[in-house]
This record gives sequence, structure tokens and C-alpha cells, in this order.
Amino acid sequence: MTTRPTYDVVGIGNALVDVLSHEDHAFIDAHDLTKGAMVLIDDDRVDEIYSAMGHRTEMSGGSAANTLVGVASFGGRAAYIGRVRDDELGAVFAHDMASLGVDFDSPRAGEGPATGQCLIVVTPDAQRTMNTYLGASSQLGPDHLDLDVVRDAKVTFLEGYLFDRDEAKAAYRVAAEAAHEAGREVALTLSDGFCVERHRDDFLALVDGGVDILFANTDEITRLYEVDDFEDAVAKVRGRCKIACLTKGRHGSVIIAGDATHEITVHQVPRVVDTTAAGDLYAAGFLYGYTQDMSLDQCGRLGSIAAAAVIGHTGARPGLSLAQLVHLLDT
Amino acid sequence: MTTRPTYDVVGIGNALVDVLSHEDHAFIDAHDLTKGAMVLIDDDRVDEIYSAMGHRTEMSGGSAANTLVGVASFGGRAAYIGRVRDDELGAVFAHDMASLGVDFDSPRAGEGPATGQCLIVVTPDAQRTMNTYLGASSQLGPDHLDLDVVRDAKVTFLEGYLFDRDEAKAAYRVAAEAAHEAGREVALTLSDGFCVERHRDDFLALVDGGVDILFANTDEITRLYEVDDFEDAVAKVRGRCKIACLTKGRHGSVIIAGDATHEITVHQVPRVVDTTAAGDLYAAGFLYGYTQDMSLDQCGRLGSIAAAAVIGHTGARPGLSLAQLVHLLDT
Repeated sequence: MTTRPTYDVVGIGNALVDVLSHEDHAFIDAHDLTKGAMVLIDDDRVDEIYSAMGHRTEMSGGSAANTLVGVASFGGRAAYIGRVRDDELGAVFAHDMASLGVDFDSPRAGEGPATGQCLIVVTPDAQRTMNTYLGASSQLGPDHLDLDVVRDAKVTFLEGYLFDRDEAKAAYRVAAEAAHEAGREVALTLSDGFCVERHRDDFLALVDGGVDILFANTDEITRLYEVDDFEDAVAKVRGRCKIACLTKGRHGSVIIAGDATHEITVHQVPRVVDTTAAGDLYAAGFLYGYTQDMSLDQCGRLGSIAAAAVIGHTGARPGLSLAQLVHLLDT
Repeated sequence: MTTRPTYDVVGIGNALVDVLSHEDHAFIDAHDLTKGAMVLIDDDRVDEIYSAMGHRTEMSGGSAANTLVGVASFGGRAAYIGRVRDDELGAVFAHDMASLGVDFDSPRAGEGPATGQCLIVVTPDAQRTMNTYLGASSQLGPDHLDLDVVRDAKVTFLEGYLFDRDEAKAAYRVAAEAAHEAGREVALTLSDGFCVERHRDDFLALVDGGVDILFANTDEITRLYEVDDFEDAVAKVRGRCKIACLTKGRHGSVIIAGDATHEITVHQVPRVVDTTAAGDLYAAGFLYGYTQDMSLDQCGRLGSIAAAAVIGHTGARPGLSLAQLVHLLDT
């Protein structure tokens, strides 16, 4: 018998602060950035780019953190586990999560690399160039997990990115095991196509045995099974985990559960401004509905709504601005 | 001839961090708090209450700051001037404003009182007990104003609370004068009824000569003119400043401009959770519309929408949560 969980969802992932500024193309050239790409950078580069960026906007980020902020915005009970340092950006991360309704009680590291940052340069053509310094976030290991939180959550949601480091990978396994022993469920997002290429064997084994709910987009799921066609990937994944939520961008999503296939349409937005975090928010909507025992169709619908609520503005924060609300009321 | 302003609105006020926790009634008794009231506390009391509070949520607050966050959420160009210290809550305030799209470049104090805080205890009956420690915010003086920002803003928006200290009052006068010399307009909110009682003569003089746009609720405007009836207050204020926006809670608002009276209805919400900052957000909607040259009826409508978007959830942040969005889509 399991007791009533304190949390609907706990997320574990790379804790990053998004630092965003608007710059012209000369900035891209001057700092030798790769426009439109996400690249990993070291601490020398982070200092160089950070100090050169103009008016900076800083907010908590990271894929799983975005998802948990979404769960909280739906009214779900949300917690997050990740690693930041005891520096100013670490304080920003912690306060920001709290102000968005997500419990984040992981102790901040007293030494080692600085809080992880994703330096995002937005150019006048609305392209985002992302430069990620993992910093303290990549130091997450099994010792940093609060397993009581994991045992108390209906679903433990994990980033595929964790597999990029052995310590974080070990943390993943410890958390998933604790969740299952407590009678809870484990969800995994494959994170991105390159991440799938790096860890295909691990992910294939997890889908077959260690994961209840899988989130992947078209690129990730076709790479996982090394097939060209989305429908072939659907056929491959069916029956392997309890539920697979496969997103197809503007073409909506499908939820595969046993023999059933639930087709979910996208929720239209007047203008797509920035698709960053669309997948993170889709997972938020699905997991909120799922932990409230809604039908899979309704879970998918909430996923679509949450994704729509983040792609209409810049940044990874869910929710409607007052400008979007006025637009919604006037149409 | 004036150049095109950089900002639509700049706000000047007491920069506070809202610190919120949910506590039971025993907490109120144990710390001798006055339930439902807003009281000013000193630094000993702030330490006592702050450290006793449980899971705390911290976000930028203060009346004028709330308004400017609303202006930014509409898509307006917003700046804020206020005083915080170089402590952790000061960093929270600055980062929070930036992440919400408000330019806040006031230097942080290197010495003196800590960053101002409003410790908000929410009891199970949904009552809010507010304990305000003004701290660094009350040290704002004329030397801390960036007058270029004031000159570059279409409207300078000022809190009545500034009149509680001579230095801040002097800052008010310097800012208003700079705005007018640059051909801009000045808006004032009377802040609260007690504030009106303390500074009635100053406010009466300002409405007659120093303010273009006045914001007041029923309590404030009737106290200002020492009348019992709202309509009497309307008759008194008419013709004294360019525009008076008078809010009447659930009864909507009226905008008085010369001989014209614009009646504005409230924008309904499914459930009123917390009316804090409703007036701040009404001002945001009005000022956004006003600086975009909308009709006064449309300015009032945006004010009502913005107020509705903050009273449906806890806290002073505008915008719709995903839960509210789903509700809106389903009705």
C-alpha cells in the first residue's frame, strides 16, 4: 500500500539559468558564435560572452525545470531536483522556481563550477543562438537526490540529458529505482536527437524496462529506432513502455498506449514567436492531466494547450501575457 | 520639439520583495500579527517573522513595480526606478524585474538598511496579513533618479506612498518637474486611504497643478475631498487634472476627462482569489492603452482586463496561469 503522494510530479535535470539578450549579427560574428545552434561552452567562453551581452534577462531554465514550472502553472504539486552553486545565479534559480510554485530544496554547492547557464542571443531575424555552460548542473550525482521527494511523487520525470555524465546517469538510475520501489511511475524525455545518438543503447533498454511514460519528438524517436519514417517508429515503440507521447510539431502528437492510438491536434496560436520549450510544456500538460487521472485524450489536449502557451512569446515561461490575453478575448 | 520616447511608462516607488507563505492561525497568534491588516514593521520584527515563515515564495513587488510589470506584459516599454540594497533580496528584485521585461537599472545601495520586504502570511481562510519593512526602499532620494529615463518616458507614474518620507517626496518633485520640462506627462496613484489622510494637502495641490493623470479608488478619492459620496468626489475632481481614473471595485470604474465621463465595466473572473494589486494592474492597462493612443474607453477596458488577470490567483503577478487558460478555453 502506498500513501497519498505529496507531489504530482518531481523533475530531475540540468538546472540552468537562461540569460537572454537581443544583439545584432555583428555580435554573432565578433564572438564567433554559431547562429541558430545550441553549443556547449566552457567557463572562459561563458565569461567572455556573458560580459559582452547587453541588457540581459535572467530566469530559471533547463528542460525538466521548464516542465515542472508548467505543472505548477496548471495547479499541480511540483518539485524539482538539480544542482546549482551558492552564487548569484544559483539564488536567481532557486527564487525563480519558488516564485513559480515549484518546490526546489536541493542544497546549493559550496564549491566547484558556477551555476549552469544557457546564454541565449536573439538576433533581429528572431533566431536564437544558445551557448550552454553546464557548470554545477552537471555535478548532480546520487548523493544529491532527496529520495523522500521521489517516493512521494506520483511521477518522477527525468531528462535524457542526464545520461551525458556518469554521475548524473547514476542519479537517474537511483531515482528511477526508488520511484518504482515506492509504487510510483517514471517518465523520460529523450531531450534531443544528438542526445539519442549518444545514448541509444541505454535509452532502448530503458524504454523496454525502466520507463513507464516516454516523451519524444519525431526526430528523437526515429533516431532511437534508426528508421526514416515516423510510422515505423510508432510500430517499434508500441507495447514497449506503458505510454509513449510522440510529438510532431505543427502536426500535433500521438499517444500510444497498448493497442490504442490517440491522435492529438495542435492548439493554434496567432503567431509562433519562439518554439523553445514547446516539448517541455507538452510534457507538463500531459503529466498534469495524467496525475489528475484524466483520459489520455484530455492529457494530450492539455499538452497541446501548454505548448501553445509558450510558443507565442519569447522564452520558456508558460502562461499568457496580458497582450496574449487581450488577443484571445478579441478573437 | 520632443524626440520619440524610449519608454512608454517609467514607474517610481517603494521597491519591495514580496515574501509569501501559507501559515495557520496559530502562527498569527504566536507572532502577535494583526490578521488582514498591512502594518509597518522594523528590522527586528522582520528578522523574527521572516525566519519563522515556512516555505517562502519571493518575488518583486511594490505598488508601482506591479504596475510596470503589467505594462511590460501588455508589450509596453517599461522602466522602474527604486532603491534596493546589494543583498540577496535586492538581487532577487533586480533579476525578477528583468525577467518580467521591466528595465531596472537603479544602482543598489552598498550600505544602510536591507532591501525592503513585504512579509505576507496567508491563512487558511484566504486572508492576507501584510507586514511591510520599507528598508532600503525608503531611502530613495533625488540623487537616485535617472532623469534621462524620466525624460525619455511618455508617462512618469508615481506612488503616493513616496510622500511618507521627505527625501522620497523631494525625488517625486524632481521627477515630475523633469518629466514636464521634457513635454511628458505625470501620473499619480493615491496608494491608500491612510496615505491620503497623511498627505491630503500635498495631494490636493498636485491634483490642481502637478498631475496629468490621477488614479484613485472610492475610499481614496472620497477621503481626499472629505466627502461621503462617490458622486460628490467625482464632481470635485472634474476639471482639476486632465484625466482621473476612479476605480470602484466590483462596480467597475469611471474615467473623468473634462466634461466627459466614461463608464467602464469590470471584466468578470470565475473566482476572486486575491484582490491585491488589482488597482496596480488597472493602472497598467490604462497606461498601456493611453501610451498607445487608444481611446479612453479602450484604455479603461484594458485596465479592467489587467485587474481581472491578477485577482484570479494569489500574488501580484499579472498574466494567466495554465489553469486559468484552460478554464477560459472551456467556458
